[in-house]
Amino acid sequence: MNLLTEPTEEDIISAQQRIKNQIHRTPILTSKSLNEIFGCQMFLKCENFQKVGAFKFRGASNAVLCLADNELKNGVVTHSSGNHAAALSLAAKMKNIPAFIVMPRTAPEIKKTAVAGYGAKITFSEPTVKSREETAAKIIAETGATFVHPYDNYTIIAGQATCAKEVFEELNDLDFLISPVGGAGLVSGSCLSAKYFSHKTKVIGAEPKGADDAFRSLRDKTIYPSVNPNTICDGLLTQLCDKTYSILNKYLSEIITVDDSSTLKAMKLIWERMKIIVEPSSAITLGVVLDNPEKFSGKKIGLILSGGNVALNKLLW
Amino acid sequence: MNLLTEPTEEDIISAQQRIKNQIHRTPILTSKSLNEIFGCQMFLKCENFQKVGAFKFRGASNAVLCLADNELKNGVVTHSSGNHAAALSLAAKMKNIPAFIVMPRTAPEIKKTAVAGYGAKITFSEPTVKSREETAAKIIAETGATFVHPYDNYTIIAGQATCAKEVFEELNDLDFLISPVGGAGLVSGSCLSAKYFSHKTKVIGAEPKGADDAFRSLRDKTIYPSVNPNTICDGLLTQLCDKTYSILNKYLSEIITVDDSSTLKAMKLIWERMKIIVEPSSAITLGVVLDNPEKFSGKKIGLILSGGNVALNKLLW
Repeated sequence: MNLLTEPTEEDIISAQQRIKNQIHRTPILTSKSLNEIFGCQMFLKCENFQKVGAFKFRGASNAVLCLADNELKNGVVTHSSGNHAAALSLAAKMKNIPAFIVMPRTAPEIKKTAVAGYGAKITFSEPTVKSREETAAKIIAETGATFVHPYDNYTIIAGQATCAKEVFEELNDLDFLISPVGGAGLVSGSCLSAKYFSHKTKVIGAEPKGADDAFRSLRDKTIYPSVNPNTICDGLLTQLCDKTYSILNKYLSEIITVDDSSTLKAMKLIWERMKIIVEPSSAITLGVVLDNPEKFSGKKIGLILSGGNVALNKLLW
Repeated sequence: MNLLTEPTEEDIISAQQRIKNQIHRTPILTSKSLNEIFGCQMFLKCENFQKVGAFKFRGASNAVLCLADNELKNGVVTHSSGNHAAALSLAAKMKNIPAFIVMPRTAPEIKKTAVAGYGAKITFSEPTVKSREETAAKIIAETGATFVHPYDNYTIIAGQATCAKEVFEELNDLDFLISPVGGAGLVSGSCLSAKYFSHKTKVIGAEPKGADDAFRSLRDKTIYPSVNPNTICDGLLTQLCDKTYSILNKYLSEIITVDDSSTLKAMKLIWERMKIIVEPSSAITLGVVLDNPEKFSGKKIGLILSGGNVALNKLLW
């Protein structure tokens, strides 16, 4: 059964206990060379090493493990072109229940292959929100499967919060924690974990300039839709929902928007200097530091590298 | 002063103590997905995360720290187009002495930039052994700097041995340890560490089919030169010397040669599944497992990922 209200400290601790044998506790890496370039101390939380290659497995895992038997028995369903689809598929597989995934027929081949590899049943839809939702509704009607939204779901948010909680267990004096902002499950969870476990740490959201609906939403106190987003950060195209808006509005320090050119520069630096593969939606957190040297000079900063799923047959630079 | 004989157990322990504050103790990563694909348990020692992006910094560090004041005072010199050049430059910089590096003018731009970035004085030579050696000899005559060979040097070999020693400290029951073979400093050190610290572990050398001089040398009991090597493994082009030949001849279990096509397949798998960047000379160790499934089925295998310095402006696949 899903959490019905904003996750409490206890909810996040329980989520961590619940999922700890299913997920990787990912490492926090540092790079002397990046610290020298940027003049600050950075700690990079490597969710690119998480199962399915992204933090999304934390939330999906928590959501599936919280479902009652009658909610589980017909499987789970979601619509997603990206990492949540793979994450829910794997969480369902581990629970031995079917996963029904609606993917836009235009989704990248590697994502389709990954989801199929976890044994999910894929149904293709047109690449519109309407078609995705209608297709999912049809599957729910036919199968009785339980819908698991990628972020409009407090149980998912509690799962994503475990990522920042792990950071704070190892680092109790960060000035800032920077998290990417898409639908904002991860950054919402990060805000809650900072509030409970490291209240002096300011949480900053990193959002692409070409998909800055969350920035404008918080500024204008109204949820804007994400219309024609234009960015290389393919994991950050979605918009806030009531739940994530409300958490960010209360606890987020600020959103800083980043040009794709800075994200790309940051991404190449991470690949080159740290020898790890991150996707643009992760590198944007370093893009924030790159664009704002005075703000971060001499500070201790956590950066969440949210995932590493990027096509390796074509480089972005 | 350099070690004059094959490193003893005590020499390797001393090397580890000597360099431990200069080097990274690199992590050993595992991948469930790779283990499932290959049907064995693999433990990947990530020297791609080492300073300068390669294990070479261990040996260079040990060599520089072993030099007496009179050997240090005029700096150090080497000829290398690759990771040893960067490693020696950084080790010299940390000791605050000059490094004179002879690089063939055809060396990759990223390597030139890296070496220059560590503050070394670069002299370009023609891309022949003769020109490299003559240029280095001229610098030694002019400056009085001390020559540090990349592998024909027991102090270097003792430094490289610390890599396998770290593996055995964490894993005391490996069936195999696979190390790349170039001039064979790393694999020689690995053999010695296995002999002293994990004598049941068989050490296997991984060598490119297109540069299999070490394989032939051990088979025919004579050191062959490396003539026109043809492989993507740009770190494995050099040939054995008396010191490394003698160690391998005594302690190495076998050399397995690998086609570049298998190395490339292995490299892509590591990038995709593990989200880490390794160079072809590292991926060849997984190429050995890829090509010999029966031999490794169900075994516990250490793989040394020797480095991660690969041009990121052009993919190899």
